[in-house]
Amino acid sequence: MKKTLIAFAFISQFVWAQKIEYASDSSVLQKLYTEVLERGKAYDDLYDLCKNIGPRLSGSLGAEMAVKWGFDKLKSYNFDTVYLQEVYVPNWKRGTRETAYITDNEQLIRPLNILALGGSVGTDGILSGELVLFHSLQALKNAPKQDVEGKIVFVAEHMKQAHVFPFKAYSEGGSIRWESPIIASEKGAKAVIVRSLSLSDNNYPNTGSMGYKEGVTRIPAAAISTNDANYLEKLVATNKSLTVHLEMDCRFLEDALSHNVIAEIKGSKFPNSIITIGGHLDSWDVSEGAHDDGAGIVHSMEAVRLLKAINYQPLHTIRVVFFMNEENGNKGANQYAKITHERNEKHLFALESDAGGFTPRGFSIDANDSKFKLIQKFIPLFQPYFIHLFEKGYAGVDITPLKSKHETIGLLGLTPDVQRYFDIHHNANDNFENVNKRELHLGAATMASMLYLLDKYGEK
Amino acid sequence: MKKTLIAFAFISQFVWAQKIEYASDSSVLQKLYTEVLERGKAYDDLYDLCKNIGPRLSGSLGAEMAVKWGFDKLKSYNFDTVYLQEVYVPNWKRGTRETAYITDNEQLIRPLNILALGGSVGTDGILSGELVLFHSLQALKNAPKQDVEGKIVFVAEHMKQAHVFPFKAYSEGGSIRWESPIIASEKGAKAVIVRSLSLSDNNYPNTGSMGYKEGVTRIPAAAISTNDANYLEKLVATNKSLTVHLEMDCRFLEDALSHNVIAEIKGSKFPNSIITIGGHLDSWDVSEGAHDDGAGIVHSMEAVRLLKAINYQPLHTIRVVFFMNEENGNKGANQYAKITHERNEKHLFALESDAGGFTPRGFSIDANDSKFKLIQKFIPLFQPYFIHLFEKGYAGVDITPLKSKHETIGLLGLTPDVQRYFDIHHNANDNFENVNKRELHLGAATMASMLYLLDKYGEK
Repeated sequence: MKKTLIAFAFISQFVWAQKIEYASDSSVLQKLYTEVLERGKAYDDLYDLCKNIGPRLSGSLGAEMAVKWGFDKLKSYNFDTVYLQEVYVPNWKRGTRETAYITDNEQLIRPLNILALGGSVGTDGILSGELVLFHSLQALKNAPKQDVEGKIVFVAEHMKQAHVFPFKAYSEGGSIRWESPIIASEKGAKAVIVRSLSLSDNNYPNTGSMGYKEGVTRIPAAAISTNDANYLEKLVATNKSLTVHLEMDCRFLEDALSHNVIAEIKGSKFPNSIITIGGHLDSWDVSEGAHDDGAGIVHSMEAVRLLKAINYQPLHTIRVVFFMNEENGNKGANQYAKITHERNEKHLFALESDAGGFTPRGFSIDANDSKFKLIQKFIPLFQPYFIHLFEKGYAGVDITPLKSKHETIGLLGLTPDVQRYFDIHHNANDNFENVNKRELHLGAATMASMLYLLDKYGEK
Repeated sequence: MKKTLIAFAFISQFVWAQKIEYASDSSVLQKLYTEVLERGKAYDDLYDLCKNIGPRLSGSLGAEMAVKWGFDKLKSYNFDTVYLQEVYVPNWKRGTRETAYITDNEQLIRPLNILALGGSVGTDGILSGELVLFHSLQALKNAPKQDVEGKIVFVAEHMKQAHVFPFKAYSEGGSIRWESPIIASEKGAKAVIVRSLSLSDNNYPNTGSMGYKEGVTRIPAAAISTNDANYLEKLVATNKSLTVHLEMDCRFLEDALSHNVIAEIKGSKFPNSIITIGGHLDSWDVSEGAHDDGAGIVHSMEAVRLLKAINYQPLHTIRVVFFMNEENGNKGANQYAKITHERNEKHLFALESDAGGFTPRGFSIDANDSKFKLIQKFIPLFQPYFIHLFEKGYAGVDITPLKSKHETIGLLGLTPDVQRYFDIHHNANDNFENVNKRELHLGAATMASMLYLLDKYGEK
């Protein structure tokens, strides 16, 4: 038995070569969580962003006000430097008319709750066409051209309920938004309507980006609320001659000049080695973007404020980035990555929060084995805060471009509890009132704790 | 190295003496979660209870309608037996007048949002008294009698934000409600107001049970909303002569006859060995009791429906119990435990859901070492559903009385994510709209999964 114990000890020592100071680190984490729960500022900052700025789609006045807000807010937190980074962004406008009706040959007239998908062309006046329903994107793909030509296609595919992790269903469902407008147009459709990517039944359509393809006619594309999608499914089953009438005056203007907002604290020991932490400042135009991604903005800022509040002095340079244009172009993230490369900067880690301000559950980690092993060592420190998920996976849209420029960078995306996320995602309900203060604040402390550990134990 | 591996294998075999069929069990759990996410009925059942019955305080017409509702609903799910178990319950009525104002000697007049604590006596008309504030229950305990005599006491103690697990703060704060009326009265106070046990700032006072003591005058006791408590704290700091005016006509009537509602499926192998699963049917009178404990009611019923839906035939007798009177007396739970004892029944396990219909995180387990070890073996089966908490702790108010009658019973309480719970707990906002369908349904599948595993691997 003794031999076994010695072997155990040997293995332990080997695996845990990099010694983690669990006792003192655990006391640091406790300070961070206590600070946020007792005196956190993220919730008030989010209120400010949601209520005093509001919707902030790239290219809009709201987005420009958000840039100014972000700059001033970061200044107020006493970073060493705060600056703007220029980036040109797509400038799509929803317009003022966005209406749909369904009629049949007899007396049925009913409005439908729709939202143009982001990037859609308008209808150029009123567009009417026979409705043709496909129960899935695949069914549309399989359909002969004559079933589609001249009609308005409705892709009724449901986001899959059975996945316990809703992002899996979202990622599977993404092709509905991206491919339907292309496939439908290739078969001669006039327009396309897709069921909202939502897991609940409600009246609020979820917008989001969509796809067009070079050489394929750009047809109008809209999302319909899940309640109305259910209604249409039933209606089609008993009524074969339905007409959809659509009016949308959305359109693209010229690309607009906008900015990433960046703030830095110089590292005390390794000022040339950088850890980025951020979220995206732009939002869709139909709500306050409270969870998507106001939460990520205030998480990132608050994480650094928490380190300051407990008097922790980072060894590496910590850079908070409010990325512009995540929702419909990702220009800010690409620009940021490009410039880090041009400047030949050294990037150790990047953390992102872009999955909502709900109770934090862990991180999705995109890193090489040595960095992943390091992060695994932190797991016991997070147990008292009910943070259990530390798995390999996609880390986030805004930090992933850094990978192509910095081969060994470790990327981490905060994973909150997202069961409610698609009830409000990209729709009119993503507002401050749907964010819980403690849940939001626990997310900020979780980001701060990971930032602290990466700074302390990351390579130099 | 080889020796180590052999020792490992030996240890493993020893610890895992009771062989768990991980592969087949994991497929059963997957079926349960898929069934609930795709075809779950708990959410619709909860809608029915909340909207067609509503508030159901013990002794009220709502409670009696809920008993009838529960009986009919359980009948509709084809249990082998459904029956009512008589129990006499306290019959406290809030009355129709429940108002408070604050005034000073000059011109200040402002209403205060209050709710009588459950069980409080009324004010017998209008009761006015000088306000005296204590920042904590301890400060009230330390105060000399002359500071309290003839006054209306306000205990401004805050529920502690810093605990990551809100139930810890609730359990610490419970004494504020239970002891303040006694201590204040012993020092001659006319009435007592306590800050609501809530972790958010809002206008909705949280009621709940309170304490009186034999031989100590029963004085009126109310909870005040956290926003108004904050207001009073500031007001007192600058204004020393404040008067509270209170009118409450709450009162006790004679104990009322009510019922636990019970349904059974006979065990196919061990019909005389029982596993109980339940929640409480009564609620406070100020809301629909959606999370507290409508969720527990539908969780319990749905857990058994899910087992049926996947064609699992329980080995032991499964008994669903809708307990009456958890909120203000616990008479139903005590009666149930007493009768199991009188009938000399054999009870293996009991599961309770009474912490809300939020995303499930695990179980709090009150069991002897052998039962606890068995449950620990199930942990890997729950990982795919993000269920991580399997710790020893208090299992719930309704099943704990079984312990005194059945020494070796294992008790398990479902632990959801409760960061939002005290925003709505015992106040006007505990309504159906604040329950998320997927979160509720995941809780039901978690209960069903545990029920299945306990039934399969529990002792005979």
